[in-house]
Amino acid sequence: MESTNGTAIEVPLGQVNAEIESFFESAPPLKDSADISKKLKEFIELNSATPGNGSARRVVCVSSGGTTVPLEQRCVRYIDNFSSGHRGATSTEYFINAGYAVIYLYRRGTFQPYCRSLPDDPLLECFEFIDESDIQVRQPYSEAVKRAINGHHTAVAAGHLLKLPFTTIFEYLQMLQMIAISIRNLGPHTMFYLAAAVSDFYVPWKDMAEHKIQSASGPLDMRLVQVPKMLSVLRKEWAPMAFCISFKLETDSEILLQKADMALKKYKMHVVVANELLTRKEEVIVVTSDEKIHVCRDKTRPGSDVEKPLIELLVERHSAHIKGPHA
Amino acid sequence: MESTNGTAIEVPLGQVNAEIESFFESAPPLKDSADISKKLKEFIELNSATPGNGSARRVVCVSSGGTTVPLEQRCVRYIDNFSSGHRGATSTEYFINAGYAVIYLYRRGTFQPYCRSLPDDPLLECFEFIDESDIQVRQPYSEAVKRAINGHHTAVAAGHLLKLPFTTIFEYLQMLQMIAISIRNLGPHTMFYLAAAVSDFYVPWKDMAEHKIQSASGPLDMRLVQVPKMLSVLRKEWAPMAFCISFKLETDSEILLQKADMALKKYKMHVVVANELLTRKEEVIVVTSDEKIHVCRDKTRPGSDVEKPLIELLVERHSAHIKGPHA
Repeated sequence: MESTNGTAIEVPLGQVNAEIESFFESAPPLKDSADISKKLKEFIELNSATPGNGSARRVVCVSSGGTTVPLEQRCVRYIDNFSSGHRGATSTEYFINAGYAVIYLYRRGTFQPYCRSLPDDPLLECFEFIDESDIQVRQPYSEAVKRAINGHHTAVAAGHLLKLPFTTIFEYLQMLQMIAISIRNLGPHTMFYLAAAVSDFYVPWKDMAEHKIQSASGPLDMRLVQVPKMLSVLRKEWAPMAFCISFKLETDSEILLQKADMALKKYKMHVVVANELLTRKEEVIVVTSDEKIHVCRDKTRPGSDVEKPLIELLVERHSAHIKGPHA
Repeated sequence: MESTNGTAIEVPLGQVNAEIESFFESAPPLKDSADISKKLKEFIELNSATPGNGSARRVVCVSSGGTTVPLEQRCVRYIDNFSSGHRGATSTEYFINAGYAVIYLYRRGTFQPYCRSLPDDPLLECFEFIDESDIQVRQPYSEAVKRAINGHHTAVAAGHLLKLPFTTIFEYLQMLQMIAISIRNLGPHTMFYLAAAVSDFYVPWKDMAEHKIQSASGPLDMRLVQVPKMLSVLRKEWAPMAFCISFKLETDSEILLQKADMALKKYKMHVVVANELLTRKEEVIVVTSDEKIHVCRDKTRPGSDVEKPLIELLVERHSAHIKGPHA
């Protein structure tokens, strides 16, 4: 909610709760929820067990990729939010390196951790036949393929990476709630790194056309309503002790920092990472209540990325959060 | 265009041409058009060369996957038409087996020919490390991986498969026009098998928000206008001798055949393949001006598909088209 003079007003929780209740009521039930629940339980148990050196692993939920909004119940058409998932996938690798257990909540078909240097269609582009029975990796992709398979399998086998895919906004928010509630007991040792591009508008399930919208009769007018802002509820109710980071992406640099500041106050995030569409791979601005820190990739090193210094900074801030007051 | 009593009225070409002109004028210019043009030229030259036995290869353009409609010029949000690309990818394999050269015009990220039995993320799911330097295919995927890499590389190396990716409706229609014009000289030996799920509505580029649509102020109202029906122009002007097959997908079986019939007459297609969302992998109906043929997969054979008998039938009809009058 914004006041008329543009400053952020905290949204009353009662009102938000009513909107969220109505959103979840209108959502189609989540498929495989029992299976997701079981995977989460096992993952948390494994990573919260105290090892020899006496401290359990920190757990971060990294959300990645864009959510879709179906326009028809038997979904043929939908609105999609573009996001390659590159930020989330890359950040996941650095979090695992830093000793975190990562719940990777990702859009089906987007980038996976350890796979960012691969071409679009790795199976067809990276392999070749030597003879009738044997295939091999093509030379230029040799390192990238090994890194992808090895890195990914090692992280999954060690129990440091749990991958949960979503497609629609309904699936995403239901899964985010399940994750938040299941890691709640780990208190401040948990982090939410919400890099997913979440739809702002949706068509309530009950208002939706059951069948494919017919195109015979002139222009199509659509009314979409706002998706309730779950960040407030995540922060205050679902996971009140967690360290929360959200992202603000704009195409217009003029309003970016103002929007990031507003999100910080409105949803009581600990950090908002502000990024602009055209420069997001070079630079981001880490916005907290008292700082604005420019984080850039190391341009002197080819192949470097902005996620490395970004995750270093956030891990450091998370440590301070764990020591300090968690509010 | 439909008359008030539901019968198809042929659209006057002048009117369609004006709409199309305005659509193409409003479209952002196609990237890599020189490169696409070059690839097409080489592909046609290679496949229209008469081999020893005296007949050139037939050429089919298979379109596959869904097109997107951007809602913002610097595209963050877009409307997407769901299509896995399974139909187009599978059909491509059968066309190549039947001796066709295939131009596979596909949506980025959708199914590729020879890859339909692979899991979602083949690189991560199908391979494992034996030791530090060597990877191998995991046993259950052994045949599928070999088939994918071998089948695909053989077809591409032989010059029988040209893959051209698109994302937006603007790219799709511009590329379809380029293809039609470049294979035009091959006359009736060409086929269009238009399995792509093409957007019916779009936002004209000039009406589009330059920046990301802001979500602060209430519901979002959108007006989309109809995409001009290119099929008429493809059939009459771009490739008047080609054998043209379009698809009609509906979720409501009650209106399916009526819609298919209408499309057949309205766009003067040679064949419309009618399919229903829920049963499309089991059965389709091939609609021509004087027949409605139910084509089903062979349910007695596990792993069989409906594309096999469908392509057999269409190849036969294409042979008749080549012999007969081509109008």
